Amino acid sequence: MEQVFNFSAGPAMLPEPVLAQAKDELQNWRGLGTSVMEVSHRGKDFMEIAAKAEQDLRDLLAIPTNYKVLFCQGGARAQFAAVPLNLLGQKTQADYMDGGFWAHSAVEEALKYGQPRVTDITCERDGKRAIVPASQWQLDSNSAYVHFCPNETIDGIEIRDLPTTDLPIVADMSSNILSRPIDVSRYGVIYAGAQKNIGPAGLAIAIVRDDLLDRAHTMTPSVLHYKTLFEKESMFNTPPTFAWYLSGLVFEWLKAQGGLSAMQAHNESKAALLYQAIDSSDFYRNQVHSDNRSQMNVPFQLADAKLDALFLEQAEAAGMRALKGHRAVGGMRASIYNAMPKAGVEALVAFMQEFERTHG
Amino acid sequence: MEQVFNFSAGPAMLPEPVLAQAKDELQNWRGLGTSVMEVSHRGKDFMEIAAKAEQDLRDLLAIPTNYKVLFCQGGARAQFAAVPLNLLGQKTQADYMDGGFWAHSAVEEALKYGQPRVTDITCERDGKRAIVPASQWQLDSNSAYVHFCPNETIDGIEIRDLPTTDLPIVADMSSNILSRPIDVSRYGVIYAGAQKNIGPAGLAIAIVRDDLLDRAHTMTPSVLHYKTLFEKESMFNTPPTFAWYLSGLVFEWLKAQGGLSAMQAHNESKAALLYQAIDSSDFYRNQVHSDNRSQMNVPFQLADAKLDALFLEQAEAAGMRALKGHRAVGGMRASIYNAMPKAGVEALVAFMQEFERTHG
Repeated sequence: MEQVFNFSAGPAMLPEPVLAQAKDELQNWRGLGTSVMEVSHRGKDFMEIAAKAEQDLRDLLAIPTNYKVLFCQGGARAQFAAVPLNLLGQKTQADYMDGGFWAHSAVEEALKYGQPRVTDITCERDGKRAIVPASQWQLDSNSAYVHFCPNETIDGIEIRDLPTTDLPIVADMSSNILSRPIDVSRYGVIYAGAQKNIGPAGLAIAIVRDDLLDRAHTMTPSVLHYKTLFEKESMFNTPPTFAWYLSGLVFEWLKAQGGLSAMQAHNESKAALLYQAIDSSDFYRNQVHSDNRSQMNVPFQLADAKLDALFLEQAEAAGMRALKGHRAVGGMRASIYNAMPKAGVEALVAFMQEFERTHG
Repeated sequence: MEQVFNFSAGPAMLPEPVLAQAKDELQNWRGLGTSVMEVSHRGKDFMEIAAKAEQDLRDLLAIPTNYKVLFCQGGARAQFAAVPLNLLGQKTQADYMDGGFWAHSAVEEALKYGQPRVTDITCERDGKRAIVPASQWQLDSNSAYVHFCPNETIDGIEIRDLPTTDLPIVADMSSNILSRPIDVSRYGVIYAGAQKNIGPAGLAIAIVRDDLLDRAHTMTPSVLHYKTLFEKESMFNTPPTFAWYLSGLVFEWLKAQGGLSAMQAHNESKAALLYQAIDSSDFYRNQVHSDNRSQMNVPFQLADAKLDALFLEQAEAAGMRALKGHRAVGGMRASIYNAMPKAGVEALVAFMQEFERTHG
């Protein structure tokens, strides 16, 4: 089989050794003669790997002990409801910083439960798309929390700074969690759908500061209720055991790679290579200011959009999959999460240069 | 590897050919060079198998066209909230028929959203545990719907009849869906967590009559909102793609076995064999009346409970896994869903007879 590089924005590629192990033991896990999918979530064997997955995640992110880690279902979309349901408490308002499609989607869901105070934080800088620095965000002390999305997959925009505020900071890290070290203690809640940097779709992780566990609205469904999930060890409902197991393998793989500092270097190096290839050419362009360029999702346009279809067709033939950009932005998008090897980006850059040479 | 039979109540065993296929193509699905877990849920390839899975399920259950099929997350527990949130409408009350642990758990969640009118439908018949016939259930026309759980996994109790009523009938079929043909047109909503007769944990299926789609409470989280899920083809949030794919393989397998009539015969034959072994011995007993004995979950007790640990230990050594009964009932429980081959029940019966011979 030819080497294939999968640039899907999500569900995205998983580390090859993780899939290889999952395949190897798919019908006989731990010598039990059954699949990990077929055992009780409350049995000794599964509880063991569930606990290890949580501990490995805690180690990777250096999660303080006063934060609970919840393994949830429903993806980040479910958290769009869970956050206001769990955190508004006696308040009715929360600050929502709107930097793109996903931040805005969280606003729409929050409207069901309170008054999101929405601030557009997009701006133009040096003729490029950028984000207002977090130090300039205007927050309201009447808000129950401030919500933002530090990486917008569609726009290829990343926010790497944090506001200084007494409000609990809530971040949808679906598309950049585990891509570099962060200071968890500065957040109230971090959540992420698994299908980019954690594991397969169908799992979401919420990291919740313990003082925020117990202010949920009485109508919060139990499966979204942070305190219930914590008290039941994320097993109030039968968890997505295979996704949990596979995420645990990803966490092990991340530790073996050297943890998040190593990932940061890996991701910076990949992103630099690709942005450099774009910037050094008039044939390709990226419209995001370097301050806010995403290291996970790199959208780029061809100067001549009539070549888009041919580019995608030839890229596909060369083993580079899922490069089509989101329709809102057009052109191409290369998602280069943790699991994308540098060789994948090198192959893409070589392909782009050859395509420019023959069609430029 | 010795032959292993896994009697887990759920997550439960999957058909061997399904797991074998999943293993075979885990790293190279459809020759794409990627896993099915790594492709976009909105891409052509996944959309194709998602649609086929729905159609195969429709074929198997003969689902009328005025019923929508939703692929959800959060398991049956999420549906415990979704049902009142979506169906109460202008009413505040619903009938809940309480026949065991799971029916009762649905009541507890419904209390968040309205007034469940709870009726205990358990009874004693001929000195055995039984359920009041559905024809005698007292329902209230002020209720928005009537909810019941037709198979209680812990108690090993199954309800095979339905009330005659104008209320929408809502059934939690998590543990007996697809075990035999049913008349879907008699229900308002059927839902089921996947991890027993459908596929791996992390997926739930809801079959919703279309006139019930549009009466949701304004605070219904979008991920639980039937109309939203229907309008977005169950892809409002990124669906659990691997679980959906694997469920599709299970549906194909069920069709290849001859569909639900064949399954009914298969399940009746397995259950008869096991109950007969229990009834023909004073060493084992089952306390459920034959009217309501579950064909999916067969709890049984040893006359001498001091032998329980030895029974489990020797069963385990003989390759019969996960036979320990729920702590609420004690003793043993053999869950024999669709995927359990008759050979598994024959092996269990042979083991039980040998154990009785040596310890009776």
